[in-house]
Amino acid sequence: MKIRIIDLLKTTTYNINVSVNGWVRTHRQSKNISFIAINDGSTVHNLQIVAEHEKIKKDFLKLVTTGSAIRVDGMFVLSTGNQQHGEIIAQNIVLYGTADPQEYPLQKKEHSLDFLRNIAHLRMRTNIFGAIFRVRHNLAFAIHKYFHEKGFFYFNTPIITTSDAEGAGKLFEVTTGDNQDFFGVPANLTVSGQLEGELGALGLGAIYTFGPTFRAENSNTYRHLAEFWMVEPEMAFIDINDNMDLAEDFLKYVIRYAIETCESDLIFLNNTVNSGLIERLHSVVNNKFVRLPYSQAIEILKQSNREFEIPILQGMDLNSEHERFLVEEYFCCPIIVTNYPKEIKAFYMKLNEDDKTVRAMDILFPQIGEIIGGSERESDYLKLRQRMEELGMNMKQLWWYLETRKFGTVPHAGFGLGFERLVLFVTGMSNIRDVIPFPRTPKNANF
Amino acid sequence: MKIRIIDLLKTTTYNINVSVNGWVRTHRQSKNISFIAINDGSTVHNLQIVAEHEKIKKDFLKLVTTGSAIRVDGMFVLSTGNQQHGEIIAQNIVLYGTADPQEYPLQKKEHSLDFLRNIAHLRMRTNIFGAIFRVRHNLAFAIHKYFHEKGFFYFNTPIITTSDAEGAGKLFEVTTGDNQDFFGVPANLTVSGQLEGELGALGLGAIYTFGPTFRAENSNTYRHLAEFWMVEPEMAFIDINDNMDLAEDFLKYVIRYAIETCESDLIFLNNTVNSGLIERLHSVVNNKFVRLPYSQAIEILKQSNREFEIPILQGMDLNSEHERFLVEEYFCCPIIVTNYPKEIKAFYMKLNEDDKTVRAMDILFPQIGEIIGGSERESDYLKLRQRMEELGMNMKQLWWYLETRKFGTVPHAGFGLGFERLVLFVTGMSNIRDVIPFPRTPKNANF
Repeated sequence: MKIRIIDLLKTTTYNINVSVNGWVRTHRQSKNISFIAINDGSTVHNLQIVAEHEKIKKDFLKLVTTGSAIRVDGMFVLSTGNQQHGEIIAQNIVLYGTADPQEYPLQKKEHSLDFLRNIAHLRMRTNIFGAIFRVRHNLAFAIHKYFHEKGFFYFNTPIITTSDAEGAGKLFEVTTGDNQDFFGVPANLTVSGQLEGELGALGLGAIYTFGPTFRAENSNTYRHLAEFWMVEPEMAFIDINDNMDLAEDFLKYVIRYAIETCESDLIFLNNTVNSGLIERLHSVVNNKFVRLPYSQAIEILKQSNREFEIPILQGMDLNSEHERFLVEEYFCCPIIVTNYPKEIKAFYMKLNEDDKTVRAMDILFPQIGEIIGGSERESDYLKLRQRMEELGMNMKQLWWYLETRKFGTVPHAGFGLGFERLVLFVTGMSNIRDVIPFPRTPKNANF
Repeated sequence: MKIRIIDLLKTTTYNINVSVNGWVRTHRQSKNISFIAINDGSTVHNLQIVAEHEKIKKDFLKLVTTGSAIRVDGMFVLSTGNQQHGEIIAQNIVLYGTADPQEYPLQKKEHSLDFLRNIAHLRMRTNIFGAIFRVRHNLAFAIHKYFHEKGFFYFNTPIITTSDAEGAGKLFEVTTGDNQDFFGVPANLTVSGQLEGELGALGLGAIYTFGPTFRAENSNTYRHLAEFWMVEPEMAFIDINDNMDLAEDFLKYVIRYAIETCESDLIFLNNTVNSGLIERLHSVVNNKFVRLPYSQAIEILKQSNREFEIPILQGMDLNSEHERFLVEEYFCCPIIVTNYPKEIKAFYMKLNEDDKTVRAMDILFPQIGEIIGGSERESDYLKLRQRMEELGMNMKQLWWYLETRKFGTVPHAGFGLGFERLVLFVTGMSNIRDVIPFPRTPKNANF
């Protein structure tokens, strides 16, 4: 019976014949026996193979080095050692592929994350990246599960677009070289699916996107990627308060899902990468997020007697140092900041009655800072037009967006989650290049 | 109580006060009563609102035209007509947004799909596109659910790449205009995540991608998109037969999921678009796919006495007319064609012992033709190198791909599903531009 290691280690049925595949992590020889630890990627736990040299020849076992791939047929038994665990007494070992110890880069010694980034094609074979990408998967699945169960429809907004949604940043252009004119107009890679997502919500009621977005910023930091994945739900017939409720419930749901389904990976990451990790995850899930108008946030920062690098002024955009002070020192829990001045927010956000602030909501997390940005959208055709005019925007280009306010407009709201930021938070990693399989950054599009 | 129409129509609890939102589909007035059908995108079924002019003024109701958006507060009751159904006796109606009958393009009359494609920002508000995109969502969710339950990890392969996976077609180039050199090397949009997906499978055991892919072909047909979504599972420790089992099980699972969860949308599509639809779906789910070596497929075609536009020759690539003959006339069920000549397949497919054919598998469906293409991958380092040399490929560019065969190589296999082809098949639509929200085709990247 062929079985994955994660499933085998769950059983308490011993003395059964099984067939297991994996890559060799370690191989330790004593006089008559070899102990081989293999891993098949299904779990952070290795499976121990006991190969008696009477059955499995020593000459053959010399080839079974770290990094090689084998199939083991044998009996799954309860080990007789102090710490009892399941292991396999090998009857037969098939060597699929060797890994020359002189050449294979992932030897037993520890490697820096920097080194592993340069061999991203092999780093999935390490405990740490196995854990990260299993957590990433489970977070992605939780996102689909959450929205599906809430009646949202997954909606694929275009990657190649001819409009810059929000002037959110520098764009990558898309051409065909010999024929610049494939689409008849200049085209670029999307920075956000929101505007098209609104079109979906204004017909289907509630949608979410989950796809790649792009920024051509020349930023070489541990927080920036040129290509990253965004989750953008959008819902008709809700206001900013419903939107805050949704975002808080959503974040807690997906983090709780990871806590429950990725226990051994999170324990591994907690023990090796970030010792406060699991406690921090529980704290976010178990505490109500503080909801704080922007003007109050500014007051708190002003009265903090803290010397910030960038001094506090009403009307300013909050900086990472300000966000972290509020979240990590003042409130000690996630915060939803609302009602920002319209000048520092996007054109599509709903204007409050004061004519000065908009119904924006940014969710700030410990360690991460802004993890979600959202708003109720301006649903009034004339107000939206006016704001676009004030900002000198091209209204002809967004005729379709404006029409949704002309025909059957409704209150609606949504938000955007940078998926890699969520994975950073839940894995406790600090460099965003380590939570996406093949990061794209300035001067780097390897693999 | 605020409730979605799909949930309300499921209840059998009548005489409760509810609040429902939606866009007006029709408004019919009799002497003292208005009957307003609204839809909120959650289901293909409209909800009937009964507005007595005593309570809701006639002057106000004049504004409640097709396309306008309203909230209705009232009592949910069982109608007294012949065909009993739940409806709402309105106590109060809030008009969110009007839709000027002179301007709103979606009046009651039927519109051509062609016309609706030009107003893709509004077409989600029609029954047909509501049905299509709800089915699309449920298929996407079923895909994630299937692979999650089978232990596959969702794996995001890069969209911007510097290598052309398989010479699969013309590439879109990615630049930053003022700085052609963002990545330090020429970059393009991916045509397939397979090669990077293999890297994932060769560490994590089993992965799947589900993301956008791109072809810059100047093809203006009802089957081609410049931007479309692909699903590409890849699994270590399996061979071509396991791969066929997986693909067949997978297709049946997701189609069965749609049959079970999208009943009313599929009935609508069956009745309005494609009358054989539901029968065809059941037939695919209930019959074993025929597995057929390529050489036998050629023999059958030769002996068919059919005059094909392109005559049959051993070694040729199968054409749509050939595929449809085999699937729709000869076998009358889906077919998996295997063991194609290596010359007409990609470099990474595993060579058979005959040195002539490769372990490819194409799944052919009625109406659609090829819906899945896959193979066992060449896991032998020397054979892979040799094939790449024969084809004059750039081995330096794919050093990382080759290294996976050098270090702990294992038998592995996978396949690719064009998601829009699946949506076409399950919705019974015939133009691929109608099953993706905002199609990208030559000269068209609107919205």
